[in-house]
Amino acid sequence: MHAPIELADTAADVLARIRERAPRVHCITNSVAQQYTANMLLAAGAVPSMTISSEEIGAFVVGADALLVNLGTLDRERKSAVETAVKAAADKELPWLLDPVFIDRSPPRAQFGRALLAARPAVVRLNPAEFAALSGNQAELAAAARFAQANATIVALTGGVDIVSDGDRRVAIANGDPLMAAVTAMGCAGAAIVCAALAVEADPWLATLAALAAFGIAGEVAAQSAQGPGSFAVAMIDALHRLDRATLRARVKVS
Amino acid sequence: MHAPIELADTAADVLARIRERAPRVHCITNSVAQQYTANMLLAAGAVPSMTISSEEIGAFVVGADALLVNLGTLDRERKSAVETAVKAAADKELPWLLDPVFIDRSPPRAQFGRALLAARPAVVRLNPAEFAALSGNQAELAAAARFAQANATIVALTGGVDIVSDGDRRVAIANGDPLMAAVTAMGCAGAAIVCAALAVEADPWLATLAALAAFGIAGEVAAQSAQGPGSFAVAMIDALHRLDRATLRARVKVS
Amino acid sequence: MHAPIELADTAADVLARIRERAPRVHCITNSVAQQYTANMLLAAGAVPSMTISSEEIGAFVVGADALLVNLGTLDRERKSAVETAVKAAADKELPWLLDPVFIDRSPPRAQFGRALLAARPAVVRLNPAEFAALSGNQAELAAAARFAQANATIVALTGGVDIVSDGDRRVAIANGDPLMAAVTAMGCAGAAIVCAALAVEADPWLATLAALAAFGIAGEVAAQSAQGPGSFAVAMIDALHRLDRATLRARVKVS
Repeated sequence: MHAPIELADTAADVLARIRERAPRVHCITNSVAQQYTANMLLAAGAVPSMTISSEEIGAFVVGADALLVNLGTLDRERKSAVETAVKAAADKELPWLLDPVFIDRSPPRAQFGRALLAARPAVVRLNPAEFAALSGNQAELAAAARFAQANATIVALTGGVDIVSDGDRRVAIANGDPLMAAVTAMGCAGAAIVCAALAVEADPWLATLAALAAFGIAGEVAAQSAQGPGSFAVAMIDALHRLDRATLRARVKVS
Repeated sequence: MHAPIELADTAADVLARIRERAPRVHCITNSVAQQYTANMLLAAGAVPSMTISSEEIGAFVVGADALLVNLGTLDRERKSAVETAVKAAADKELPWLLDPVFIDRSPPRAQFGRALLAARPAVVRLNPAEFAALSGNQAELAAAARFAQANATIVALTGGVDIVSDGDRRVAIANGDPLMAAVTAMGCAGAAIVCAALAVEADPWLATLAALAAFGIAGEVAAQSAQGPGSFAVAMIDALHRLDRATLRARVKVS
Repeated sequence: MHAPIELADTAADVLARIRERAPRVHCITNSVAQQYTANMLLAAGAVPSMTISSEEIGAFVVGADALLVNLGTLDRERKSAVETAVKAAADKELPWLLDPVFIDRSPPRAQFGRALLAARPAVVRLNPAEFAALSGNQAELAAAARFAQANATIVALTGGVDIVSDGDRRVAIANGDPLMAAVTAMGCAGAAIVCAALAVEADPWLATLAALAAFGIAGEVAAQSAQGPGSFAVAMIDALHRLDRATLRARVKVS
């Protein structure tokens, strides 16, 4: 799985399945990220839904193929929606991803994040500061692997290089562009693409690698034509929509 | 009204009045659609407002020239806002449009949608799955006409071809581009443009046809320069802003 | 301070400090403006956060370098968040800006806006209709100066020309482009850039002038390549990201 060509082909296959099957991804995500996340999912070929009403969320999760739980802008109704949705996902054995946005900034949010970990997300996506707040350890490869092992999940530690570990296996993906950090909700949208991949690939490890590689490579393609973070954000959507096997093969950087 | 040239001229006249009068459109719309809807209304020349606070919504509706009621992301406060707003619209005889987003996915939302129908929206805008959930019938021309008749409203059944019926009259508009389905909130924004048209055209039938034709044609113009759904969404705003009579006449496809 | 070259250099210095220090700006802003505001702050080099949860807002404000209080889409949770945040800002002596969006449309919002004035914002940013509703006077230079004096704040009255007064001093900035009025949340985003400037410039008067001049000039640069309000909104983000001293010097129009 570490061979670049193999990862590129897995990513191409996963993208092809998303485009063919149009999986439904229900997103409980912060209000800042909703529009960009929905557009990125549509660009990939998935079908987003975004409601957080406690009356309705059960029906949306039951009809979905994967669930995104993002803790940004965590108001009361959103928090209650997360609890209902995670239970519905467990009942249905639906894969879900935890994106504990800004838990390094808010102690109650960090506590909520730790409680959610116990509910067994398939994947946890976070940045180094969030990883430190959630795990109590510095964000590096060995700590990520231990944390993944201890929590029986996959850790996707994203940043300049994305580190993905399920405890045993550890992969570093070096794709992406610095402009990705200058667009709000870029990480949130990347996590949503991981969810779309989880919906069409039974191995959550492969799904995570494939999605993050594709997302980073879309960022590289977008950077080629961007004049700044505004046009970059738009071009990322176009690039993900058009991403093909040849581009994935030519650009994937994995170790 | 079925002659293309006549519809193109009506659409051009309605756009000109929106640009001249800058009608206020109050939108209760889902959190994913708010920004794109507001930008599309501004591009058309209208003035959007978006609050859903129950304390304030009465004042905003009283000051508005049309009301959009979109049921996406239907949380508690939004639901209560809809009820207050629809009453205020009835008192003021303000035209309003019902966009029952995703009622096919959520039984409580479908029930709420049916209750709102009884409050007499000028127009109901929906896709085939939503029409089936609301009416209990397959989405086709005759069923749309019967439903419009029974509910004394105008049905705008949007998709590859937009079907508009007030019961007696039935028109199909074949403008638009497949990329419109790859951008979130595109249908929601189209419904908002119908609202802007309702604010400046007393005949809701003409207003609906004019707005949907203009919107679809803006999509065709945008597709000419788009590199994918990201740049398409941006170009749609530009295209609606600049849409002129000659383009409408050259492109309208109605039957 | 009225010399254009001096203002251009102040703006360039303030932008350089934002890019270097990456100040955190916590934004309580309306749901329509959140994404664009966050992207504009990131483009300027600042780090936005947007939560409105009453449980968390205290921690976010304490960790921030400036606070934006925008009264758009003022639902219950947002209103309660404003009250908590303004208290936390006072305790920490954090500069904050009041943007009383649409108070001319909603009497309860106007009342809330007046109460917030008593809590001593560093800057109040508003348009002429909002100024009239808040102050009871016509929006013109002398009235803005009196209002600033009486409330010990800086008034930034934005529009075709931006008027900035702290009571004694009065400056008019004539930069900007008409397309700025055709993009939703443009004024909200401009207010957020003032907040970023407040975080790195101790004199709130200089911070406000610098930010508004830079913002207007970014608008002029963006208009050069825009095809309409859609591409303009994107180009504004790029332009602010790349704005340099030479462009500021060449374009600043102040009197």
